[in-house]
Amino acid sequence: MLTLYTAPGSCGRASHIALEESGLPFEVRLLDLSAGDQRRPDYIRINPKGRVPALITASGVLTESPAILSYIASMATAVQLAPCDDPFALAALHAFNAYLASTVHVAHAHGRRASRWADAPDAIAAMQAKVAENMRACFLLIEEEYLRGEWAMGSAYTIADPYLFTMTGWLQGDGVDLADFPKVADHYGRMLERPAVRRALAAEKG
Amino acid sequence: MLTLYTAPGSCGRASHIALEESGLPFEVRLLDLSAGDQRRPDYIRINPKGRVPALITASGVLTESPAILSYIASMATAVQLAPCDDPFALAALHAFNAYLASTVHVAHAHGRRASRWADAPDAIAAMQAKVAENMRACFLLIEEEYLRGEWAMGSAYTIADPYLFTMTGWLQGDGVDLADFPKVADHYGRMLERPAVRRALAAEKG
Repeated sequence: MLTLYTAPGSCGRASHIALEESGLPFEVRLLDLSAGDQRRPDYIRINPKGRVPALITASGVLTESPAILSYIASMATAVQLAPCDDPFALAALHAFNAYLASTVHVAHAHGRRASRWADAPDAIAAMQAKVAENMRACFLLIEEEYLRGEWAMGSAYTIADPYLFTMTGWLQGDGVDLADFPKVADHYGRMLERPAVRRALAAEKG
Repeated sequence: MLTLYTAPGSCGRASHIALEESGLPFEVRLLDLSAGDQRRPDYIRINPKGRVPALITASGVLTESPAILSYIASMATAVQLAPCDDPFALAALHAFNAYLASTVHVAHAHGRRASRWADAPDAIAAMQAKVAENMRACFLLIEEEYLRGEWAMGSAYTIADPYLFTMTGWLQGDGVDLADFPKVADHYGRMLERPAVRRALAAEKG
């Protein structure tokens, strides 16, 4: 049994959807980030970073969305969620997810989490004011260069898809119009039709 | 033949060292970031993100350090640079590198690259003023929780080591004293003794 710690609307949604797709036995524990659950001692013992997601496995705890997603893909033998036998295609998938983690998620985080990077209220406001511009630039690159077909990596659904879906879901709150990115919008719509996505979204509502 | 595009002192150093360790045939092309080489049209055709590193392979171009490092490990059959046959250990390695990419590198980037996230000069100065505090917090976590032995992941040298080494090399410029982190400092010293590291550092000097 795998246990995923996540929070509604957070990047942990990607791992939650991947678990729903995987056929692996799992349970989800939802943290309330606004109540500070992620900083409580019992959670810090699980994930010293004080962030979601975290996945408890029989071998130990995993953190970081790209790593958790890769682990789920490697364990989900009943379905193919990554091109595990093709080193280049697998690395290209890792590159897609690494961009989401280290550039897109970071651009988004300068909205509600700007205080990580500066203390002055004016500086925090200046960071928040640039979030829409940066998210728009990220999604323009995804639209024009990186979304390769029906699914993020082409014709096959992979662990890149729930991760992209999760960040696409942040655009409206970041002041970006999804309609400006037709391929990304189509992808978002296709994701919403998947039973695994519907189950994860329903579970987030508790 | 693999071709790595990198820049002296950049995060591309990790991929450069991994190639030196790998036994794979490769060449390195050094960009001058201060001259804006990464934004020239001929490089944007290789990597539309306008960043280093980028690795040209026979199958196509790869970007993002964690993905390039994973690819090198999967192709380097003469040496073992990742626990490719152990899904949990491999995911733990991915988690280590994902933390470096999306938290540590981002903390560092708020020094010289703060203008990515705000326009106002005061805001940029406020971000730069917090770099040392954030890098110190990152390396305290690495020192206490994540550096597992002689090498980052324990007894075996992996692609986590050149990536950690590269970021450790940024501490002094970020106003952080490496001596505050004895395990990280030992790791840095061990890395400096490796012939592959010496070759990569010498090549960066041109």
